[in-house]
Amino acid sequence: MTPIDSSALRDLAFNEQGLIPAIVQSETGRVLMLAWMNEESLTKTLELEQTVFFSRSRQELWHKGASSGNTQQVLKIEIDCDGDSLLIQVREAGPSCHTGADSCFDADTLFISEDN
Amino acid sequence: MTPIDSSALRDLAFNEQGLIPAIVQSETGRVLMLAWMNEESLTKTLELEQTVFFSRSRQELWHKGASSGNTQQVLKIEIDCDGDSLLIQVREAGPSCHTGADSCFDADTLFISEDN
Repeated sequence: MTPIDSSALRDLAFNEQGLIPAIVQSETGRVLMLAWMNEESLTKTLELEQTVFFSRSRQELWHKGASSGNTQQVLKIEIDCDGDSLLIQVREAGPSCHTGADSCFDADTLFISEDN
Repeated sequence: MTPIDSSALRDLAFNEQGLIPAIVQSETGRVLMLAWMNEESLTKTLELEQTVFFSRSRQELWHKGASSGNTQQVLKIEIDCDGDSLLIQVREAGPSCHTGADSCFDADTLFISEDN
């Protein structure tokens, strides 16, 4: 793998709970989910090259797909201009949503423009 | 425009600050930015069919592109399975990032896999 840019890691702006939001996008372009990471889960993600999040409800690390088998292989991690959010491109081993849907955003549509 | 699904709006899970994260994605598939909305900014977004966020640093509504001209026309708004994040597909009038980059995620790359 390409060496990690550790200066970029140091510059990340975790919030007051020590968390940073991570947008997970399939290599197909579909946005799959928004989840949260702390420094430990991000470090694990980089080690495993699979997504590891921090579950805010359970207050523990959450290796995505560890029980279901639906892991997400990490292809790329980009950081935004403020250093306070991540964009993670992944290759999925199965559906990303706990409902069985490919994307958590398949759940509901609030608005569709006539120009869409 | 297609009528707004107001029951979906009622079911949104705003956080303790009254905010919900909004992932903004270009119709090209590129993720442009992560920003935050409160109920008022989301209502304005639906009225204008352009993105209106809530600036956490300035604690005020922020109509994207109102000064720069780089507005974002809203094509679709999807809600995730937990109702606590939004995915907004847009057509951009210009660069989305204040740096002049197309995407805020053009700023820095933390990791690239050999499989990418």
